[in-house]
Amino acid sequence: MTATVNRQVLLVEKPTGKLGLEHFKLVEGAMPEPKDGEALLRVHYISLDAANRAWMHGATYRAAVETNTVMAGGGIAEVIASNSPSLKPGDIVFGDTGWQDYAAVPAKHLTKMPRLEPMTHLLSIYGIAGLTAYFGLLDIGKPKAGETVVVSVAAGSVGSIVGQIAKIKGCRVVGIAGGKDKCDWLTSELGFDAAVDYKDGAIFKALRAAAPDGIDVYFDNVGGDILEACLAQMNLRGRIACCGAISQYDGAPSASGPRGVPGLIVVKRLTMQGFIVMDYMAKRDEALAELQAWVASGQIKVREDVIDGLENTPQALIGLLAGDNRGKRMIRV
Amino acid sequence: MTATVNRQVLLVEKPTGKLGLEHFKLVEGAMPEPKDGEALLRVHYISLDAANRAWMHGATYRAAVETNTVMAGGGIAEVIASNSPSLKPGDIVFGDTGWQDYAAVPAKHLTKMPRLEPMTHLLSIYGIAGLTAYFGLLDIGKPKAGETVVVSVAAGSVGSIVGQIAKIKGCRVVGIAGGKDKCDWLTSELGFDAAVDYKDGAIFKALRAAAPDGIDVYFDNVGGDILEACLAQMNLRGRIACCGAISQYDGAPSASGPRGVPGLIVVKRLTMQGFIVMDYMAKRDEALAELQAWVASGQIKVREDVIDGLENTPQALIGLLAGDNRGKRMIRV
Repeated sequence: MTATVNRQVLLVEKPTGKLGLEHFKLVEGAMPEPKDGEALLRVHYISLDAANRAWMHGATYRAAVETNTVMAGGGIAEVIASNSPSLKPGDIVFGDTGWQDYAAVPAKHLTKMPRLEPMTHLLSIYGIAGLTAYFGLLDIGKPKAGETVVVSVAAGSVGSIVGQIAKIKGCRVVGIAGGKDKCDWLTSELGFDAAVDYKDGAIFKALRAAAPDGIDVYFDNVGGDILEACLAQMNLRGRIACCGAISQYDGAPSASGPRGVPGLIVVKRLTMQGFIVMDYMAKRDEALAELQAWVASGQIKVREDVIDGLENTPQALIGLLAGDNRGKRMIRV
Repeated sequence: MTATVNRQVLLVEKPTGKLGLEHFKLVEGAMPEPKDGEALLRVHYISLDAANRAWMHGATYRAAVETNTVMAGGGIAEVIASNSPSLKPGDIVFGDTGWQDYAAVPAKHLTKMPRLEPMTHLLSIYGIAGLTAYFGLLDIGKPKAGETVVVSVAAGSVGSIVGQIAKIKGCRVVGIAGGKDKCDWLTSELGFDAAVDYKDGAIFKALRAAAPDGIDVYFDNVGGDILEACLAQMNLRGRIACCGAISQYDGAPSASGPRGVPGLIVVKRLTMQGFIVMDYMAKRDEALAELQAWVASGQIKVREDVIDGLENTPQALIGLLAGDNRGKRMIRV
């Protein structure tokens, strides 16, 4: 082991409003020492996710992140030393490494990943993003050929894959994204049938034009006004896959929810269902096999947004929350 | 046929705020003449339902009711003449008879009912109310023994049956109702484990005390603040059966929905699902057989609130919307 310094990004203050650089601090810590059952990891890529911001609010599906500790985050890492029989040096793993160069993590909290190139795909299409898109769309949304599928944050890591899987399933696909460039990209590069620019205002009307037969499946990454607009245009027995509420993460929580709950849910017999990709891990291999086949055949294009340097992680997350990314954003450490 | 006058209650104005007597008018019309395929009906009982009010807002799962026509409503009636081979004089039917003494209705829109006593049960436990409770709780809520089931409008026609079925299934049952008398009745007469008086304020805290292990199934008849309080206390993978939104019917529609949508739905992997009892008609006989067995064994007590006189129908609906009824409210014509 040559390094003796472990650069770490700490969360030094919990944001009450918008997240800023002042909430983080880059420090130099000592190299971690793996305890019994732990592996020492060299972090290669850190995943940036809207959920990182939600963890600052309080307990979600995991404990809240605490101040003056290393900011939590998923990463792809290589084992450089191991005190666990299940891992050996050279193994590639995914786990909550946190925002740092090196981490000592219990082996039981790590998932062994295949060595494949590009390694970044382990965080995008073959990682949480791809699996979230796969299970959320197919298991919760249950799209049928000919139906209309709408997805928000469509140019993001999950949304861009949701839309492409829906196309494979024979659906009309409408993406909601911020800005004309992203919208053009969705239709010209990713094969979406239509795209709605939510920054253009008049989301309700634009959505009506893009989905003239109504919405059968809405894959919701945002909540708020966009969920409200989609709810109003859902068809009878439509399904809403509740994947995230990015509109609610960065800033004070909203004082109310979308209109139409529960009135429209009753009248249209809608199903709104939340899910967490971790619940589907037993079916992971089957999903990966199908995703790999779609990537190999060119039916899914993988877009990644890789930023160099651990020191840039805070800004990369702030930018992600502002919608700067296209496809899966990650840090190359 | 001896009668020559058909008393009818017309909706003469659509309410923009609270429903009042001024929105109705009792008139004397001519006896209807059944056309080809229609049956002439003598109406015996008219069902009063919160949904009657929702129909005045606009199209729901049926077309909106129009002004200066007979107010729509379900009724139990006897066939006195028939121009359809499927019905004969003496048959008992359920259908949208409207608020009147006599109606001519296409036979295909009528459901033939068994002749049983008391006939009122055809509108309560063996009617829409009982079937709504049965399918909404069992098919959407999917309660398991030992789970906590919460139902709102618990002293109403549907809620009082939902709670009793949930008890039969071995659940802890909490009813939400307005006023101490109703709450006492739920626990002392109907076997609910606890009751929460929403008029007492502090609904959130009272619910926490009544459902200390959280809520697994919430059968929602109201929407609004009560839905919001329940959402916050749902357990992981909880189910919300969206049956109605009575809090939203009488007055201007709410400008927003409950907090926690979709945030809590995601984090807790909740399912919110709307349903309409008509979707379950293929499984009706099976449900009726089970309900009849429970009534016969005394496991379900049927409470009805029967008011005499067609002229009292408007006031009976106004009172129902204010929560005056206990059990199924209906008019004996």
